[in-house]
Amino acid sequence: MSPMNWADQDPSNCSLTLTLDVIGKPWILLVLREVFRGLCRFDEIQRHIGVSPPVLSRRLAAMVDAGLLERVPYREEGSRERSEYHLTESGRELFPVLLALRDWGDAHLAGENGPATVYRHEDCGAEVRVAMVCEDGHRIAGRADILPEPGPAARPLS
Amino acid sequence: MSPMNWADQDPSNCSLTLTLDVIGKPWILLVLREVFRGLCRFDEIQRHIGVSPPVLSRRLAAMVDAGLLERVPYREEGSRERSEYHLTESGRELFPVLLALRDWGDAHLAGENGPATVYRHEDCGAEVRVAMVCEDGHRIAGRADILPEPGPAARPLS
Repeated sequence: MSPMNWADQDPSNCSLTLTLDVIGKPWILLVLREVFRGLCRFDEIQRHIGVSPPVLSRRLAAMVDAGLLERVPYREEGSRERSEYHLTESGRELFPVLLALRDWGDAHLAGENGPATVYRHEDCGAEVRVAMVCEDGHRIAGRADILPEPGPAARPLS
Repeated sequence: MSPMNWADQDPSNCSLTLTLDVIGKPWILLVLREVFRGLCRFDEIQRHIGVSPPVLSRRLAAMVDAGLLERVPYREEGSRERSEYHLTESGRELFPVLLALRDWGDAHLAGENGPATVYRHEDCGAEVRVAMVCEDGHRIAGRADILPEPGPAARPLS
């Protein structure tokens, strides 16, 4: 397609805009963190993040509707059936987003003591962070080494 | 420190929580995108994302206060002095967050035509994405290969 300046391109179908329409609420990422950390039952999440049950209930339902979590029933001896929340594939693929946000917080907001959580590569024990890498395998130092160009869905701003 | 289950750890000083306290509003990331894409003057950003001037003005001021952007004065021939908004170092380091969000949108939300923007490595032309990498240089396939552990600032949930 012909070159198009960003200023002339419609930003409403940019993948960032689309993603933020789905997961732009901070509580979505905080609830995902709980499930990534293994707390997947309503009571566990509710106790840990200290949100009221009706609010959490509404939030989990919204995340199921958005295809990020799925409900899996379980029943403990002598109790009624309840739900666990498991990550869908699409939810699981948000882990790099959480890690990128965490990296920035580690660098810019964590106090003198350092971060509250460390993520290690299970095989070698080294700390894991997000990196920018091109499909030819080069590590990208920063935005200055990247050229954005209009993609196949680029359309002019109307 | 002694092992601590996530359920027993205070989530309020987790770096993800800290980051979302600062940049948890979707408009912050959308305005950062504009500046990363080279639109750094008030009128350019306002025209491109179609937000009202008073709202944009408030948002830019909040981003300057949060240390993400800095105001740089400029003056065009015959006009009064105006401001451009430049990324601070801390703002620039949010680029991987935007890219991670963009990647997920490319994979899960972009339509049949593909994405609206493609990011290429300037040197080799290959597409750039976010990856998870450990400090020993291993690529991490997914969350399953990562072990989270309490960091130095971990503290019990009170």
